[in-house]
Amino acid sequence: MCAMQRNTTPCYYNDYLQLDKLLGSQAPESPKYGDEAHDEMLFIIVHQAYELWFKQILHEMRSVYGEFNQATVPDDSLGRIVSRLERITKIQKLLIDQISIMETMTPLDFLDFRDYLVPASGFQSIQFKEIEILLGLKSEHRINFDKDSFYQRLNEKDRTHLQQMENEPSLFDRVEQWLERMPFFEYGDFKFWDSYQKAVDDMLKNDRKIIETNDYLSENDREFQLKDLEKTQQVFSALLDESAYQKLLDSKQFRLSQKAMLGALFINLYRDEPMFQQPFRLLTALTDIDELFTTWRYRHVMMVMRMLGSKIGTGGSSGSDYLRQTTENNRFFKDLFALSTFLLPRSALPRLPEPLKQALNFYLHPEQE
Amino acid sequence: MCAMQRNTTPCYYNDYLQLDKLLGSQAPESPKYGDEAHDEMLFIIVHQAYELWFKQILHEMRSVYGEFNQATVPDDSLGRIVSRLERITKIQKLLIDQISIMETMTPLDFLDFRDYLVPASGFQSIQFKEIEILLGLKSEHRINFDKDSFYQRLNEKDRTHLQQMENEPSLFDRVEQWLERMPFFEYGDFKFWDSYQKAVDDMLKNDRKIIETNDYLSENDREFQLKDLEKTQQVFSALLDESAYQKLLDSKQFRLSQKAMLGALFINLYRDEPMFQQPFRLLTALTDIDELFTTWRYRHVMMVMRMLGSKIGTGGSSGSDYLRQTTENNRFFKDLFALSTFLLPRSALPRLPEPLKQALNFYLHPEQE
Amino acid sequence: MCAMQRNTTPCYYNDYLQLDKLLGSQAPESPKYGDEAHDEMLFIIVHQAYELWFKQILHEMRSVYGEFNQATVPDDSLGRIVSRLERITKIQKLLIDQISIMETMTPLDFLDFRDYLVPASGFQSIQFKEIEILLGLKSEHRINFDKDSFYQRLNEKDRTHLQQMENEPSLFDRVEQWLERMPFFEYGDFKFWDSYQKAVDDMLKNDRKIIETNDYLSENDREFQLKDLEKTQQVFSALLDESAYQKLLDSKQFRLSQKAMLGALFINLYRDEPMFQQPFRLLTALTDIDELFTTWRYRHVMMVMRMLGSKIGTGGSSGSDYLRQTTENNRFFKDLFALSTFLLPRSALPRLPEPLKQALNFYLHPEQE
Amino acid sequence: MCAMQRNTTPCYYNDYLQLDKLLGSQAPESPKYGDEAHDEMLFIIVHQAYELWFKQILHEMRSVYGEFNQATVPDDSLGRIVSRLERITKIQKLLIDQISIMETMTPLDFLDFRDYLVPASGFQSIQFKEIEILLGLKSEHRINFDKDSFYQRLNEKDRTHLQQMENEPSLFDRVEQWLERMPFFEYGDFKFWDSYQKAVDDMLKNDRKIIETNDYLSENDREFQLKDLEKTQQVFSALLDESAYQKLLDSKQFRLSQKAMLGALFINLYRDEPMFQQPFRLLTALTDIDELFTTWRYRHVMMVMRMLGSKIGTGGSSGSDYLRQTTENNRFFKDLFALSTFLLPRSALPRLPEPLKQALNFYLHPEQE
Repeated sequence: MCAMQRNTTPCYYNDYLQLDKLLGSQAPESPKYGDEAHDEMLFIIVHQAYELWFKQILHEMRSVYGEFNQATVPDDSLGRIVSRLERITKIQKLLIDQISIMETMTPLDFLDFRDYLVPASGFQSIQFKEIEILLGLKSEHRINFDKDSFYQRLNEKDRTHLQQMENEPSLFDRVEQWLERMPFFEYGDFKFWDSYQKAVDDMLKNDRKIIETNDYLSENDREFQLKDLEKTQQVFSALLDESAYQKLLDSKQFRLSQKAMLGALFINLYRDEPMFQQPFRLLTALTDIDELFTTWRYRHVMMVMRMLGSKIGTGGSSGSDYLRQTTENNRFFKDLFALSTFLLPRSALPRLPEPLKQALNFYLHPEQE
Repeated sequence: MCAMQRNTTPCYYNDYLQLDKLLGSQAPESPKYGDEAHDEMLFIIVHQAYELWFKQILHEMRSVYGEFNQATVPDDSLGRIVSRLERITKIQKLLIDQISIMETMTPLDFLDFRDYLVPASGFQSIQFKEIEILLGLKSEHRINFDKDSFYQRLNEKDRTHLQQMENEPSLFDRVEQWLERMPFFEYGDFKFWDSYQKAVDDMLKNDRKIIETNDYLSENDREFQLKDLEKTQQVFSALLDESAYQKLLDSKQFRLSQKAMLGALFINLYRDEPMFQQPFRLLTALTDIDELFTTWRYRHVMMVMRMLGSKIGTGGSSGSDYLRQTTENNRFFKDLFALSTFLLPRSALPRLPEPLKQALNFYLHPEQE
Repeated sequence: MCAMQRNTTPCYYNDYLQLDKLLGSQAPESPKYGDEAHDEMLFIIVHQAYELWFKQILHEMRSVYGEFNQATVPDDSLGRIVSRLERITKIQKLLIDQISIMETMTPLDFLDFRDYLVPASGFQSIQFKEIEILLGLKSEHRINFDKDSFYQRLNEKDRTHLQQMENEPSLFDRVEQWLERMPFFEYGDFKFWDSYQKAVDDMLKNDRKIIETNDYLSENDREFQLKDLEKTQQVFSALLDESAYQKLLDSKQFRLSQKAMLGALFINLYRDEPMFQQPFRLLTALTDIDELFTTWRYRHVMMVMRMLGSKIGTGGSSGSDYLRQTTENNRFFKDLFALSTFLLPRSALPRLPEPLKQALNFYLHPEQE
Repeated sequence: MCAMQRNTTPCYYNDYLQLDKLLGSQAPESPKYGDEAHDEMLFIIVHQAYELWFKQILHEMRSVYGEFNQATVPDDSLGRIVSRLERITKIQKLLIDQISIMETMTPLDFLDFRDYLVPASGFQSIQFKEIEILLGLKSEHRINFDKDSFYQRLNEKDRTHLQQMENEPSLFDRVEQWLERMPFFEYGDFKFWDSYQKAVDDMLKNDRKIIETNDYLSENDREFQLKDLEKTQQVFSALLDESAYQKLLDSKQFRLSQKAMLGALFINLYRDEPMFQQPFRLLTALTDIDELFTTWRYRHVMMVMRMLGSKIGTGGSSGSDYLRQTTENNRFFKDLFALSTFLLPRSALPRLPEPLKQALNFYLHPEQE
């Protein structure tokens, strides 16, 4: 072991990093059945590098999770949360780039040893499942393929561990609560969401007038655009109407509660205000994490299909089914993505009254009083 | 203008690159309606950079296309083809990275000027459509959204130009012909595809035995794996059976003719042979180009959804529909992707007889006689 | 021209981007002397893409420069400054990646046309020189090679333009002033720099004790470490001593004024405080920009050497001389780099008194009063 | 342990990758002295990921080294060598990108635990030193800083191990021998290097004439260019003159023997010939590896300077000294870089006579007789 107080023997790089253990953990299977397949080492190292980075991602996520576990989240917490989430996105970019190294292995090279590994599969990574669960993925969200092929293949201990994790609140839950707790939004005469509703109505009315009077539109196009406008109108109404919003939740189009959704929208609308700059970066980082995991899954599935080929009718379609479904299901914060729908141009934004600003400022920077 | 013979005035960097024209081509619309939206310049520059690179990609593709336009494709042509296709993949990677620059523009910033641009859309790039058509995409392959929204919005001249291009043979056609012309595969007693069939049969028979006798399998799993095996068997048969293969073509599961498919498979199986190393790199580069355009489209759609939001029920699902469909339809060389299905382990590969090797060598290196 | 009011003809993508001009600006020289060299197009496009991005960088820099041109820089300005500087770093990363595309051209391919271009050289980009000057590079900082080969080759108009730019205040000057104006640092009994000096003294005293009493150090090592410690001590003293600091300025080890340097150090030390989070990101972005231009120059010189070879004794060494010198000279904000030297562990940091915090807060967020 | 024959228990992902060991190898020091420093985990994981990839690089290098250990290197060996060297370059790019993750740790965060680690330093990685030695770096090439600070800090066992490795032939030696063994270059009347010399003379004579008669040159410029031309002439002569070349070796301007240098030049000149395409890619990959390690060292030093600051006068300058010196010294294949100096335009290249082509072909593809 390595002891590093200044009045002791100095620390040895090799010991500190435990390289004997680390570099003694690669045991290819192919030599047991004949010649070593040269590329099996690559297969092992790539997956081990993934696992190291998963560990780091979990380290950051758990600390972020801890910071959210406070009645109010003070500003220095927000700073740490943001920089740790942003670090996660940097790691994710590396994970995506890493796929190009795996792709230097050709399908023919992979054939040399893949039979020895069946059914060990990248989809069995416990740590990756922990990440998904911590972010907010429940078994009920998983697509069938994932549910069956994954949970069934786990050993008892690992399965139990993951199932317990699912019962804890997730990062999604914590973020939702934090957004819900924001002190909204009525001060004296000013009712924010009324002003917002009015601004939306004006905008849509103006749009309608333009469509109806634009001489360059064909009748077909005019009709199409008017229909489109009506749908937009409905969506906006649902946002502010409790029972309409509930329907969107029931049909799984949204996951965030209405209150949290409004909080997130508010941050997006006023992200230029000093007090909202950090919260806005926080929401952006969460969206980035979501998008990058989706990209990673996507590139990963592409790589697997390239390596294994796609059996016509079965494997093939199930590969692209898997792709489509995880693209749509395993996005935890896709509601944040959808927020752009509800933005208004800066010029149309209601100006915030001072007392409201102060209440928000106090909520976000409690230590500054 | 710039004249650069050594006995003339030296060439001026600015003139050679025609920077006055180039840097005078950015005309934001927003100042016409009020203050300039700061980020409109970014929007213009990003799209112009795309167009410059599209021009370079077309330059490379057309030269590759020309090289394929020969009865046999000599080895120095193959060298040039491969290095130019690989250059295209490098450019594609840059195009993908470029999206991250566009993403520094937030939805709110975009709102400041997007109304002035409607309906100018990235999907209207003529050059990108030229690339798609040159690669082998016909109108009939395009999904409806693409067909309607794109072709309708073009002006007469551009539409006609693209429609004419569709009537020319594409790079896909040229590659297919080149693969078909390979002098296959029977010399004296040796019939390659018989040997291949036998090797496949042995492999599958062995797999069946293992499944039937593995004591660790549950009855359920055994049944599942046997079914899977049968499907695999059917796929392999279709490959070598003319009328079964025709059905796969009719149902659009494959696009490459059977003869070309067999040629490509052959190259994949024997890619370690010196004579097949360049052809194998060529097929790999085509697959890469396909995969990278798919990734680019995917990341592009993600970015657009993030920027514009997704209208529930309509825009939203059409965005992800578009994604899924172009992912599946606009892949020109996905049959090359599927080849992995038909690979055999090196140890099971039939050894090629000398005369066959020589015939292939002559076909691929005609200038070496 | 493109008119896009909603009650007009819609805007056409091609016109909006002025693609006829843009895509008509590539005029290879090689066809004038024989066959077109295939790769000259790449050479042109790569350089034109650089110029487009340089234009974007200048667009962002000038807006940042404008924001700094205020007596106080309010927080919403800070937000814009930071996000625009960070956008520049993203663009720079793309510029660096772009070199790998240029590298797909081999030296032999380049030989096919390079004679026609002499002496047009990438070092002649006016826009890049504008960027350097805007950041703060004066002729006097330029190394000889740069001065001679560049300014001599410019035409009269361009030379005059750049020389005039040099006489304007640069971004460096503006940042320096902003740092200097920070309302420091004495409130009642509290004198910040005295506390800092004391914390430094304690730290160094403790270090000395450890070195003197560590039984595991050889006599040699102990001596070496003590010498090192003394030098550290001198550096710290120079920071707070006006005349010692002036010597560092005179010998060009630092460029930032002492007052600005202290301001920057202060931000670094207290970057966890809410009010300093944006300023800290600002300084970080400036350092990033510096580092990325250095990396770009470095990779660019590597690429040129690979393309042209290095003439032994002359060209060769001048290439690497150039590298070393621009690495050291053309870094505008390297003083910010050096700040790490003066950091203290969080545990040793003096706690800021409330009135000081408030003064700083007012300086940084003047609109919040 | 994991046993994976099909008639056994299936292999468990966790066991196959030995994740218990791998993920149990992170032991931060900071908790021993107080609170855990959050970012120490990142520091450990980053370095461990480096070590995993170093192991992979060594795996590839040793296999390449083995392939070179044959009297002739048959073409399928060449294919494997090239693809494994190219894989190394992909890994190197990842290592460079990985630095950006380390940079998410700020100097202040690092201060929280760096004292516990002194003097454990990244420069102590045994595996990285193995890579350098395997590539061809001897102690005598190392700069002083490197020699002292590195070897002194190793324990006895590691130092001995590395010193023994230095006595083995390196990859550099093997490549040199392979280049030297090429069957050059005289057949009947044809003496290649005479033709090359003549082509060079013609080219230089023509250059001189242009300079002397170009009316647009000032007298100053004419003189300058004529001097430059003379130097070029001397360099070309040295290449073909044994004793002049020896002087270049003695003064350490070149490391490759003259014979090997000529072999490498020949491959570069005729890289369009089918037989030289693989050897050319091989030389390119070696140059890439060199350049990428140089870039990695460079970025690493930049990062360290940013993290630790640069003590004025000592640490600072030694940091940039280190940079400059390792940039120049630790490049193993920089002679391959210099080859561009000696290229001729394709049009000036002597055509190879058939018998020479055949001899070369046999040398490079011995299995094809």
